[in-house]
Amino acid sequence: MKAQLISIGNELLIGDTVNTNASWMGQFLNDLGIEVTRVHTISDEQELIASTVSESMKESDLVITTGGLGPTHDDITKTAIAELFGINLIQNDAVLNYIKELFASRNIPFSESNTWQAMVPENCEVLFNKAGTAPGMWFHEHDCFLAVLPGVPYEMKYLMKKGVAEKLRQESSSIGYIHTQYLKTAGIGESTLSDYILGDLTSYLNSHVSMAYLPSFGSVTLRITGKGATKEEAIQHTESLIRHIKLRAGDFIYAEEKETTLSEQVGKLLIEKDLRIGTAESCTGGLIASTITDVPGSSSYMQGGIVAYENEVKIAELGVSQHDLDEFGAVSKPIALQMAHGVAKALGTEIGISTTGVAGPGGGSEEKPVGTVWIGYFSPEQHFAVKALFTKDRLVNKQRSTIVALEIVRRVLSGIDELPYGLKKEFA
Amino acid sequence: MKAQLISIGNELLIGDTVNTNASWMGQFLNDLGIEVTRVHTISDEQELIASTVSESMKESDLVITTGGLGPTHDDITKTAIAELFGINLIQNDAVLNYIKELFASRNIPFSESNTWQAMVPENCEVLFNKAGTAPGMWFHEHDCFLAVLPGVPYEMKYLMKKGVAEKLRQESSSIGYIHTQYLKTAGIGESTLSDYILGDLTSYLNSHVSMAYLPSFGSVTLRITGKGATKEEAIQHTESLIRHIKLRAGDFIYAEEKETTLSEQVGKLLIEKDLRIGTAESCTGGLIASTITDVPGSSSYMQGGIVAYENEVKIAELGVSQHDLDEFGAVSKPIALQMAHGVAKALGTEIGISTTGVAGPGGGSEEKPVGTVWIGYFSPEQHFAVKALFTKDRLVNKQRSTIVALEIVRRVLSGIDELPYGLKKEFA
Repeated sequence: MKAQLISIGNELLIGDTVNTNASWMGQFLNDLGIEVTRVHTISDEQELIASTVSESMKESDLVITTGGLGPTHDDITKTAIAELFGINLIQNDAVLNYIKELFASRNIPFSESNTWQAMVPENCEVLFNKAGTAPGMWFHEHDCFLAVLPGVPYEMKYLMKKGVAEKLRQESSSIGYIHTQYLKTAGIGESTLSDYILGDLTSYLNSHVSMAYLPSFGSVTLRITGKGATKEEAIQHTESLIRHIKLRAGDFIYAEEKETTLSEQVGKLLIEKDLRIGTAESCTGGLIASTITDVPGSSSYMQGGIVAYENEVKIAELGVSQHDLDEFGAVSKPIALQMAHGVAKALGTEIGISTTGVAGPGGGSEEKPVGTVWIGYFSPEQHFAVKALFTKDRLVNKQRSTIVALEIVRRVLSGIDELPYGLKKEFA
Repeated sequence: MKAQLISIGNELLIGDTVNTNASWMGQFLNDLGIEVTRVHTISDEQELIASTVSESMKESDLVITTGGLGPTHDDITKTAIAELFGINLIQNDAVLNYIKELFASRNIPFSESNTWQAMVPENCEVLFNKAGTAPGMWFHEHDCFLAVLPGVPYEMKYLMKKGVAEKLRQESSSIGYIHTQYLKTAGIGESTLSDYILGDLTSYLNSHVSMAYLPSFGSVTLRITGKGATKEEAIQHTESLIRHIKLRAGDFIYAEEKETTLSEQVGKLLIEKDLRIGTAESCTGGLIASTITDVPGSSSYMQGGIVAYENEVKIAELGVSQHDLDEFGAVSKPIALQMAHGVAKALGTEIGISTTGVAGPGGGSEEKPVGTVWIGYFSPEQHFAVKALFTKDRLVNKQRSTIVALEIVRRVLSGIDELPYGLKKEFA
């Protein structure tokens, strides 16, 4: 099945809004096995809308428009479509009642201009929009399906999933269901993961199940997409691949839900084990503490932290040895070890985590180039530091150090011996 | 002048890449006074490229394609264009030499497949691409201008500014120059700024100068765009408006360069006045310290910070009074005042800044709802706290508190009495 998308709205052409709808729909349809051959972005002009819809319908099996369905005078998509088909707009009572009830429940006065939202072309089937007030519309004319959707991303997505995908399944047996599962990994690079850990999984990939690597700072999310004639079959098609991924990469996976963050996962482990944590940060400058406290309820395990940017603070607040600072420098194993231990002692926590490094762009040397970071870990059972070398970019170094520090905590608390990126524990 | 854009690439249709090029170009051309009437996003198919270019050229005065100019076999835009015009591809020696030199300077071996980059249709004028290896191309055929550009955003932008805009000016006297100036404000809402402070500036706006409000967390950037027949005239057209904006909103403006951050500006003031700062954070959890240390060289004024998430830490590390915690609660004026003073004392800095609040989603009460934040400021000259009420969203509350805290420091150091958002100084 071939599809074309028509994005309607002047705001897209003058660059006020980036057309994220088109890329989301492209991926959604691609996953359903539908090929998007082109996207038209056009202005809110009635003639242009009509001619573009008409041309696209001749060239493809499915056409989807977004935008121009609001209650104001420049929203003329419905009028253009009705004219194109030579059809009247009629009032849909179900939609009108829904909008009236919605307004009443929100205590918004219902104005007559809102009745326009309930007018639809006679030849359409309404795609009920529970995410907003503008109904979607479904047409089957000249051997082509046409879906007319609002441009608000949240409403468009709702109607693509609940309306368009459902209709396509009724109309074509080749359109099935999709199930997407995310596995979030940390502390391993995309290429190591794909080449060395998951490389031979290609034999588990087929037309029913696919996998994508979505890398971001220090973290790679795996997206596994299963397809099937039923929802259950789609889920089933992902299961064997997911089982094999977990067998090989289980230690790297920190979450199986798209929204779960590494700091949330660390929080869960701390609660589970009834432990409290404190942070001692130099090069990360507070980012680890801030990331930990992004999680609602983190006060139940986050005691606090010391941002020890200056050496005096390291000495006064964390009990770091002036002698070791002089002998080894601030960016060194002994200092990282002392900071982690020092913060646990100062704040009375079981776990202390520390960073000291050269964030850049200045301050690097041959021995300790920009990107050199020591991360320290302290608990009554384990006390070690690791040395990492990140990038030349200050903000990236702060980010990476934070993720590696959190991933170290997660692995230690999960009983995983191996450290992120194959880093080595160095003891006092 | 009417234009159409053609974005070429399968990655755009299957949703792997969002078409940000089209919106950037839409804005750029709009500023030049050129109306973009439609954007076509199409796959890398030779026939489709040729027919879309041909159709678009019939309908408009300017057509710009992006994408499909790389050295691999699926990059076929050049071939499609050459076929469309019935023209051969010839080697451009200047481009070839440039690529060879570029590779040599980077110590990359020059392979024969790279000579393909230097092949261009005979009827084009080369738009030299100093930002990459694929040259842009300029055609004038059938009363229409056609620009063929690479899809890499950085290279596209370079060629739009250096190549396309220049050519259009040569060809049409109606195409002028654009000058864009940014004024960054903090601590004032978009609507207050536009309705009460800058409302009557509309009389300074005309076809030569326009203004846009670009709001982000706690900060509103003003974009002033001037147009003129020369670069100087474009600059000149912005000057009177900028002067009037500064007269009215000068105290809110913290930077005149797009890239400058509020924490950079605070850093400059601290260096100028030779002062050091320390942070005492509860609800912001380290975000203020992290934001301050995002700035390269911040170690020259940032001493460090205490993330005092638990009350015990507030007492032990910041000298906050147990009695006041019991009587007023952690989220209160006395505690904010004591934290700001305490951190300056503990870390030996001139300035101390503190936050204590209900970040949410839990922990709110009728008296202190989610979003209530006390921010404390201490210096030997001034010691006060302010009470703000932000949102129900935890991360937004952290962000807003951080910006307001930094903006308070900026204003005090700049000798501005008024506080952000009209907040009131409360003394001990």
